[in-house]
Amino acid sequence: MQDKKAVILVSGGLDSATVLAMAIAEGYSCYTLGFDYGQRTHSELIAAEDISRQMGAVEHKVIKLDLSSIGGSALTDNTIEVPEHHDDAEGIPVTYVPARNSVFLSIGLGWAEVLGANDIFIGVNAVDYSGYPDCRPDYIAAFEKMANMATKVGVEGGSLKIRTPLMHLTKGEIVQKGSKLGVDYSLTVSCYQANEQGEACGKCDSCFLRKEGFEQAGLTDPTRYINH
Amino acid sequence: MQDKKAVILVSGGLDSATVLAMAIAEGYSCYTLGFDYGQRTHSELIAAEDISRQMGAVEHKVIKLDLSSIGGSALTDNTIEVPEHHDDAEGIPVTYVPARNSVFLSIGLGWAEVLGANDIFIGVNAVDYSGYPDCRPDYIAAFEKMANMATKVGVEGGSLKIRTPLMHLTKGEIVQKGSKLGVDYSLTVSCYQANEQGEACGKCDSCFLRKEGFEQAGLTDPTRYINH
Repeated sequence: MQDKKAVILVSGGLDSATVLAMAIAEGYSCYTLGFDYGQRTHSELIAAEDISRQMGAVEHKVIKLDLSSIGGSALTDNTIEVPEHHDDAEGIPVTYVPARNSVFLSIGLGWAEVLGANDIFIGVNAVDYSGYPDCRPDYIAAFEKMANMATKVGVEGGSLKIRTPLMHLTKGEIVQKGSKLGVDYSLTVSCYQANEQGEACGKCDSCFLRKEGFEQAGLTDPTRYINH
Repeated sequence: MQDKKAVILVSGGLDSATVLAMAIAEGYSCYTLGFDYGQRTHSELIAAEDISRQMGAVEHKVIKLDLSSIGGSALTDNTIEVPEHHDDAEGIPVTYVPARNSVFLSIGLGWAEVLGANDIFIGVNAVDYSGYPDCRPDYIAAFEKMANMATKVGVEGGSLKIRTPLMHLTKGEIVQKGSKLGVDYSLTVSCYQANEQGEACGKCDSCFLRKEGFEQAGLTDPTRYINH
């Protein structure tokens, strides 16, 4: 049987760690891709590397790319504060990074082409998510269509797939799924502004969604919080 | 009248310099975007900056992004030689950089969103071109569709356009167009492996296409060649 390769975008958070576990369970040889894009928290990069190694990725690559020079987001511009979670928040939040998933998926597409991988996994989710436009199913479908025209594999009649196994799961279901597959969530960092030790603020949207996920799943959240 | 902003991808070559001139002639305030992506030749980066300044771009930004760590192309992997031009070459050449236009357009999309620009210009061409899959009209249409789903402007019902004014022009027509608009082609560098002084090899596909373009246009090519 031929080696089935996949590129997995990993952020260091719980979603992408779960996606990696799912791709491994499907029998893929996994090539994990992280981005040092000028984000607030550096500990998520270390988390992405730790998770990839611990779960048996064939290779982990980090691409350095300074999106902070473009700005426009609380995650890449230190003059914009990360807001605390509010249940009644509406619209696209300031933590949205313009075109981030398009940039990451495009770089993943380039690596997939070099590796001869036909699958790119990304942990986007349209249920318990932060309202980012580039997490929706229609967006992913449009990206996949574009990707198949952008590359050799598309021209030669191959079929590249953008795989989003978390798309329709609740955060609780994601945590349950990953736990069954043996994901060590203590290695993951979800907080938008975690400190150097990987401790979470406990106040941002991402902390809130994570906490809720573990509660829904009836499991203990191993998150370490900053002692405010 | 409101300021009409556009992001222009500039490579330092003659095509993107012509596109910039066309966008300026259309009345756009132009924000030029270059990429230091691990390409062989550094002089094209200097050319992109010189052209942007000389033609009156509002701002020129260079994004550093190491595509050479992905490799797969003669332009980013020094172990793969840039081939000499052959009239009977078939298929996608080794100078193709996997997913390059998708990565560049996605970063341009992010900047356009931050600036509030609705137009992104790119100098792709489907007539006298090197056979790259991500220069075809179908690809650009698919990218535009994706881009309108990826971003705030798309969600809010705006309309982002990927503008390709060179798509159906011959290289000769491009040179004529730019010359009429006053482009100083002596500032541009087309060669895949130009030296530090911006001198061209005269042997690669890109040198060949440029030379042919000036001949077709009946104009003098100001290219400086390496003294072999």
